Amino acid sequence: MALNKVLFLMLLAFATSHVATAGDPDITSDFILPPNVTAVDGSFFTYTGLRSAVNSQPGAGFSVSKAASAELPALLGQSVSLAVLKYSAGSVNPPHTHPRSAELLFLVQGYLEVGFVDTGNKLYTQSLQPGDVFVFPKGLIHYQYCNSGSAAVAVSAFGSANAGTVSVPKSVFATGVDDVVLAKSFNTDVATIQKLKAGLAN
Amino acid sequence: MALNKVLFLMLLAFATSHVATAGDPDITSDFILPPNVTAVDGSFFTYTGLRSAVNSQPGAGFSVSKAASAELPALLGQSVSLAVLKYSAGSVNPPHTHPRSAELLFLVQGYLEVGFVDTGNKLYTQSLQPGDVFVFPKGLIHYQYCNSGSAAVAVSAFGSANAGTVSVPKSVFATGVDDVVLAKSFNTDVATIQKLKAGLAN
Amino acid sequence: MALNKVLFLMLLAFATSHVATAGDPDITSDFILPPNVTAVDGSFFTYTGLRSAVNSQPGAGFSVSKAASAELPALLGQSVSLAVLKYSAGSVNPPHTHPRSAELLFLVQGYLEVGFVDTGNKLYTQSLQPGDVFVFPKGLIHYQYCNSGSAAVAVSAFGSANAGTVSVPKSVFATGVDDVVLAKSFNTDVATIQKLKAGLAN
Amino acid sequence: MALNKVLFLMLLAFATSHVATAGDPDITSDFILPPNVTAVDGSFFTYTGLRSAVNSQPGAGFSVSKAASAELPALLGQSVSLAVLKYSAGSVNPPHTHPRSAELLFLVQGYLEVGFVDTGNKLYTQSLQPGDVFVFPKGLIHYQYCNSGSAAVAVSAFGSANAGTVSVPKSVFATGVDDVVLAKSFNTDVATIQKLKAGLAN
Amino acid sequence: MALNKVLFLMLLAFATSHVATAGDPDITSDFILPPNVTAVDGSFFTYTGLRSAVNSQPGAGFSVSKAASAELPALLGQSVSLAVLKYSAGSVNPPHTHPRSAELLFLVQGYLEVGFVDTGNKLYTQSLQPGDVFVFPKGLIHYQYCNSGSAAVAVSAFGSANAGTVSVPKSVFATGVDDVVLAKSFNTDVATIQKLKAGLAN
Amino acid sequence: MALNKVLFLMLLAFATSHVATAGDPDITSDFILPPNVTAVDGSFFTYTGLRSAVNSQPGAGFSVSKAASAELPALLGQSVSLAVLKYSAGSVNPPHTHPRSAELLFLVQGYLEVGFVDTGNKLYTQSLQPGDVFVFPKGLIHYQYCNSGSAAVAVSAFGSANAGTVSVPKSVFATGVDDVVLAKSFNTDVATIQKLKAGLAN
Repeated sequence: MALNKVLFLMLLAFATSHVATAGDPDITSDFILPPNVTAVDGSFFTYTGLRSAVNSQPGAGFSVSKAASAELPALLGQSVSLAVLKYSAGSVNPPHTHPRSAELLFLVQGYLEVGFVDTGNKLYTQSLQPGDVFVFPKGLIHYQYCNSGSAAVAVSAFGSANAGTVSVPKSVFATGVDDVVLAKSFNTDVATIQKLKAGLAN
Repeated sequence: MALNKVLFLMLLAFATSHVATAGDPDITSDFILPPNVTAVDGSFFTYTGLRSAVNSQPGAGFSVSKAASAELPALLGQSVSLAVLKYSAGSVNPPHTHPRSAELLFLVQGYLEVGFVDTGNKLYTQSLQPGDVFVFPKGLIHYQYCNSGSAAVAVSAFGSANAGTVSVPKSVFATGVDDVVLAKSFNTDVATIQKLKAGLAN
Repeated sequence: MALNKVLFLMLLAFATSHVATAGDPDITSDFILPPNVTAVDGSFFTYTGLRSAVNSQPGAGFSVSKAASAELPALLGQSVSLAVLKYSAGSVNPPHTHPRSAELLFLVQGYLEVGFVDTGNKLYTQSLQPGDVFVFPKGLIHYQYCNSGSAAVAVSAFGSANAGTVSVPKSVFATGVDDVVLAKSFNTDVATIQKLKAGLAN
Repeated sequence: MALNKVLFLMLLAFATSHVATAGDPDITSDFILPPNVTAVDGSFFTYTGLRSAVNSQPGAGFSVSKAASAELPALLGQSVSLAVLKYSAGSVNPPHTHPRSAELLFLVQGYLEVGFVDTGNKLYTQSLQPGDVFVFPKGLIHYQYCNSGSAAVAVSAFGSANAGTVSVPKSVFATGVDDVVLAKSFNTDVATIQKLKAGLAN
Repeated sequence: MALNKVLFLMLLAFATSHVATAGDPDITSDFILPPNVTAVDGSFFTYTGLRSAVNSQPGAGFSVSKAASAELPALLGQSVSLAVLKYSAGSVNPPHTHPRSAELLFLVQGYLEVGFVDTGNKLYTQSLQPGDVFVFPKGLIHYQYCNSGSAAVAVSAFGSANAGTVSVPKSVFATGVDDVVLAKSFNTDVATIQKLKAGLAN
Repeated sequence: MALNKVLFLMLLAFATSHVATAGDPDITSDFILPPNVTAVDGSFFTYTGLRSAVNSQPGAGFSVSKAASAELPALLGQSVSLAVLKYSAGSVNPPHTHPRSAELLFLVQGYLEVGFVDTGNKLYTQSLQPGDVFVFPKGLIHYQYCNSGSAAVAVSAFGSANAGTVSVPKSVFATGVDDVVLAKSFNTDVATIQKLKAGLAN
């Protein structure tokens, strides 16, 4: 009925439009029903959009395929999601944060150099081989680099239905922050800032 | 120093001895340091115990390999864990609950019949193929059945560093609950209860 | 007004339709108003449905009378509820879990044998007499058995406005889970599973 | 071992020394073990201190008997407690707040006039008869008055193992707050404040 | 669209009508958008109502100017608010509690005597001078007294978008609580209660 | 006693060593006592380190003076802190995030240009004048720029006792992240990365 629709859309809006910064609120029901649905069955709890991800090799660059609340609405209120990460040889997943969750990366194939920086500005790095698991703590800036000659594939688990991503390059250099502010912040000249902006504008 | 050790052991005790029933408490630090460790580096955040899981096929029956706080102490306070699940053809992961987290299962290889029962006593089932993702909502009884002729492998994500497991068969029939209580509860005779207990005692 | 109605129905739907697995979300108001109500007074905070429970003796079998959010909507967001439990001589409250709360049972009249199983599969039992208080920890399977010759009455407190109940017998054997899955799970034959199902189907 | 003792005492200290103002933190274990205990059994989860409460009538004035974490340490982390309240004819439970929980009062015997004030300074009152249930919302000032000619008995449930109590008369007039501050605050003269203090000093 | 409006009004209603008793629920978005707004810009995150507070001296008595969710709706879900407090010489901020947050007072100008009472009924007092910071713990009754010959100004921070206030004098003596209940509660006579009520009725 | 010391140091360690990413855990006591303290009085709740902040004008550049749990241990568990921010004419507070809290800035003196970027990579900016209040939502990258000819002073409130700071320039360019990783991430050349690193190394 109409109430269910409002509730469902509201939660979907919460989950998909912006990134949150803390744990998901708990729900007080088994799951959240979609609006106007009278016959829920097992298919509501199933996402088939990753079938191709297990049947193909990584393409060019870095790519991510998510199974989060935007893709599988049954995840709303369940505080968990996952993603399949694919890296071509030499590709990078640039520095970013997940405001709502730590990331637990399980390297299924290939090799990765990974790193994160804690709030005391200390860098932690590790070379991962197939089967290795690495945790990026909550809220810290981290990256992965496929520096070997072959592609890599990882599955990452998150403790939120919508962990969210703040990309450092895009957030700082591709949103129109004033050149002077950035030049002062990064202790450089405006020309360097403009060069960085130009590179990331594409 | 001693303080760190107390803290670390305390959290480890919390995390490994028993199963909790709600979300992990948040930590107010980047991560929890192990006691007596003066030089933390990237290896602290790495678990290598699943390397064999990506290099071997399922053996007989059903088996689970976890990367949770007991295996990777850096997960303490990070509210996430994962597991690799392997099923031989015809094997079952019996009805159970995870008191602290929903489970998001990603079927990497093979086929599974999965199901869970909501609190209104409605059964939801689904047939999964490689690449399918299925969510078992928090706190509900669920199972997986590899009813095809070939083995299956899945990776499951949890929104807790220690999701915990309450196995229904073991909890009810293998812990010494009185035969009369069980016979009355399951509306059957004591002989049937004793037969079930004998089967699960092995 | 319409907004209040949406809010109220939404919370009621959350609270009554399904069982949740964690603490109630906090509200940021004194209480939640019902829709279309312009003159709230003390009666809104009162539930009279348990008057008969204090004026009558237990009937046949086991029965439970709740004062939770479904019966007293003013409990929405207040994180507390209670129930009156009545046992005829020889009756059992079968193994079950409350996904959202521990249960603190206060035995007002009669005698009970109680038990629960922790996640390490250890059984804890106790014989209770009038005035005894017993806590069943969160999320664990537990039962009560009135094995004396006289009836018993208890009042149980819960730390949730809707603690919820997952009945093990009904959830596993009365919802249509496949006979083969259950036979493999309980390490028995299909005939025994079918006998259990038949007994619980009534 | 020593670690358990530290943990146990620490939690006990948290729970018993002062009153908190929000929900109990969740634990990530089935229950908290007492220090130096090697053989926990059902008695650890049992409190027998209320046996007399069900076997005696109310004495003079108002009295409360609690089953909270101070009395039953197994309640630590379980987010629930209860109390038996006894009122002689004409007695009052003075205005107070419970900083950590709403109170759900179940009137077992007798009659009570109850009331609370919301944050908009509106008073809600109700006359209760045996079997009635009344909820005092979280954090609001409330009282009960046994204004009938006979004694009353109630059982109250709380959604915290240690709900805490801030008594308004004692907190304001029996702790040494300066007479001038109080006279200005209550818009009265110092003599009236001193009279109130004298009455409550006994 | 309509959905946004419902959501916004609902949250506003939560935040402004009554006082809550626990931490604000987290949101799972960057911020909550107002209904029917298609072009949000920086002004949505700005409150200009305190401009006069920095440009004027305290008037007669005690006054408070808040920047909370009622004044700045962008605070909904952000778990923070602040207030500017002004005291004329000799004025008092009467005993009160903030059900949802501790208060961290920063004395910008003048001198204050401050105090709070813990739940063990112990009074803590302090004399503050310009630049001093004092924390009133969550849920405890506290007051401030400008006992010097000059006015004072403070800025207080709260860990809730709507910390709420329960004024002890108004809640107890200006809401119609029965004279007999109050006389018994404060161990005084009805005439004294009526005198207090009269003083606070204005 | 020893227990208090362990507890106190533990909480202090949590609060001061690293930045967390979610709300502070609630405490279940009025406040956390320091170890080996037998006579707590009002001074424990007082911080005098900001006296100079109200008695002096901004010096060169940008500076921040905090009253958080590291400076005032009584804030542990109280979920609130504040800071005094001083800007010389032309100075910048570089892009950063507070992992544990939104920031509510109250501009007491001078003029500021402020901005933040949401997770959809949209920039929000505002020009503030004395008395203006601006909220930077949780977890988002934000900055302040004193672009007028005179100094500015602000007081910021946080909904955490230790909100934490991740500085983007330092975290990315001053911690040793590999030049190649950064060049690929920012779509630039290694020389530009090395220039940025050199500028921030001082």
